[in-house]
Amino acid sequence: VVFIDACFKKETKHTPIWMMRQAGRYLPEYRATRAKAKDFIDFCRNSELATEATLQPIDILDVDAAILFSDILVIPLEMGMKLEFIEKKGPVFHDPVSCMEDLARLCKTPEENLGYVYEAIGKIRKNLAPDKALIGFAGSPWTLATYMVEGQGSKTFEKIKKEVYKNPVFMKALLATLTESVKKYLINQIDAGANAVQVFDSWGGALEEEKFFEFSWKYMLEISEYIKKERPNIPVILFSKGIGTYMDKIYGQFDVFGVDWGTPMKLAKDKLFEKYALQGNLEPSRLYDRGEMLKGAEELLNLFKGESGHIFNLGHGMIPDLPAENAKELVSFVHSYTKRS
Amino acid sequence: VVFIDACFKKETKHTPIWMMRQAGRYLPEYRATRAKAKDFIDFCRNSELATEATLQPIDILDVDAAILFSDILVIPLEMGMKLEFIEKKGPVFHDPVSCMEDLARLCKTPEENLGYVYEAIGKIRKNLAPDKALIGFAGSPWTLATYMVEGQGSKTFEKIKKEVYKNPVFMKALLATLTESVKKYLINQIDAGANAVQVFDSWGGALEEEKFFEFSWKYMLEISEYIKKERPNIPVILFSKGIGTYMDKIYGQFDVFGVDWGTPMKLAKDKLFEKYALQGNLEPSRLYDRGEMLKGAEELLNLFKGESGHIFNLGHGMIPDLPAENAKELVSFVHSYTKRS
Repeated sequence: VVFIDACFKKETKHTPIWMMRQAGRYLPEYRATRAKAKDFIDFCRNSELATEATLQPIDILDVDAAILFSDILVIPLEMGMKLEFIEKKGPVFHDPVSCMEDLARLCKTPEENLGYVYEAIGKIRKNLAPDKALIGFAGSPWTLATYMVEGQGSKTFEKIKKEVYKNPVFMKALLATLTESVKKYLINQIDAGANAVQVFDSWGGALEEEKFFEFSWKYMLEISEYIKKERPNIPVILFSKGIGTYMDKIYGQFDVFGVDWGTPMKLAKDKLFEKYALQGNLEPSRLYDRGEMLKGAEELLNLFKGESGHIFNLGHGMIPDLPAENAKELVSFVHSYTKRS
Repeated sequence: VVFIDACFKKETKHTPIWMMRQAGRYLPEYRATRAKAKDFIDFCRNSELATEATLQPIDILDVDAAILFSDILVIPLEMGMKLEFIEKKGPVFHDPVSCMEDLARLCKTPEENLGYVYEAIGKIRKNLAPDKALIGFAGSPWTLATYMVEGQGSKTFEKIKKEVYKNPVFMKALLATLTESVKKYLINQIDAGANAVQVFDSWGGALEEEKFFEFSWKYMLEISEYIKKERPNIPVILFSKGIGTYMDKIYGQFDVFGVDWGTPMKLAKDKLFEKYALQGNLEPSRLYDRGEMLKGAEELLNLFKGESGHIFNLGHGMIPDLPAENAKELVSFVHSYTKRS
């Protein structure tokens, strides 16, 4: 399987490509599937609809990997937190956590309530061609914690950063709890049929260097090392956004580092490619314009000419108003440009 | 004047310190001044109140420089855009610009409507001790444009980035217009009494490397080089947030590079200190905790031990709920720790 081989830096017949948030609103087919659910949480909990959404980008774009359609926030949701997805605003927790007592009230085994995810994975894997990989995923403990403490998305992360500096004992208790659940959640996804897993640390960049390694990377690695011990043949992808200036300090056991668009791929290659495969990192906005998209893709691919271990991806998720025909052309361009005879 | 000397990398009797957003809500005195104005725009337009707010941190904290109390958005405001500051949401333009026709309707000489700023500067300079510097400032053309096009703050900058990739001709016309105004605005501030100027590019990091240099840095440099030609004795500080991974490509004529907290100062020093003085970059959240604050400050100061050209600052603005007594202690710590006999 091209995608899996590339994760292990083996030679492949072409460079694999998938796109973060490839199952998303930019696809009319996705919007039709979405319309069948009463709300976004209902969508995530419905394994039939999740299967449908997951498979669409495979059929429409011909990407090399499907990624489970779900949301990172199903973990706190199944810990019993009151989650609502508000149109144009994003996710909101009506009962944010801010102390040990709040943490004590949460269910510590959310992975046991996530049967609908494992069920979806089984269905997807059954309907996916054998040469396509299925990626499972979870949010990083730090990124999950940001939503749980802030109560919603944030530009400044004032609440949680105050906890980091003033109340590190509480923060670490919360992060350790999440780490245990994410470990088991990902193992369950693998056992249900996922062929690789990615940990999304969307808000790693909210922390300065010292605190990033102490409050985010440490826990991501704990998850990765657990999976590499328990399921050694499954590639683990770690994606921390906005931490390019600390990249030389990245360490530990995992397979693929996901590079965001804010980090020049040349820099990531210099610092990390000797040890890890690299995934990324076309600026998604380039897909607004066909010429900018192809120019950016070509430059990126030229960086890895003749080398194995690059997985083409965007440097962040697909944007809802990007033209689907450009996404389609990008996939075929990457395949043909990198085809090995 | 310690602050000015440090900008030019001359030896000083101690390391100068000031803090971005040092005139702000964390000070009870500021909140009292703010309460005298009917709204935030009225506050900015009232040179008496702006003078009061500007001088407070000098009296209370003993920082080495005052920075004009104002807002970067007075430029688009005085171009005729409908600006409102909404509590807990931030600035909103009710008439965002999205095409050449919108641009054509705007006043091209906002600097002529900004007399209240020059008036405030005159008053502040008259009331400021001669050993304290007064910093004038403006937003970078790119950062002003993000608000003008998005209509408000943004996490993803989808509207303006679409313009960057699809409509660069319009974007560059807007940026060139803003550049001309910012040049004249800063010269007028200098002539009114400002001893240094800083250009704030808060959203430079919204652009990938290639586009950052093309759509933001180019225009900041144009402003800087104009000022260095017209008023060569005035230090120019350029602050672009979130661009640490492109830092090795920073070039051009200016005096001080402002380093945000997301960029390790060690990296900035390695890449830029040979050519420029450096300002920054304590993570503001460290001020929540006295121990973390002093530890961070000491590490930062040790990096520059025995060298000239470091201006101590935060890596971003003061946060409204930080304790003022910690800010005060930070200033006295920096002064005593770096005192030269």
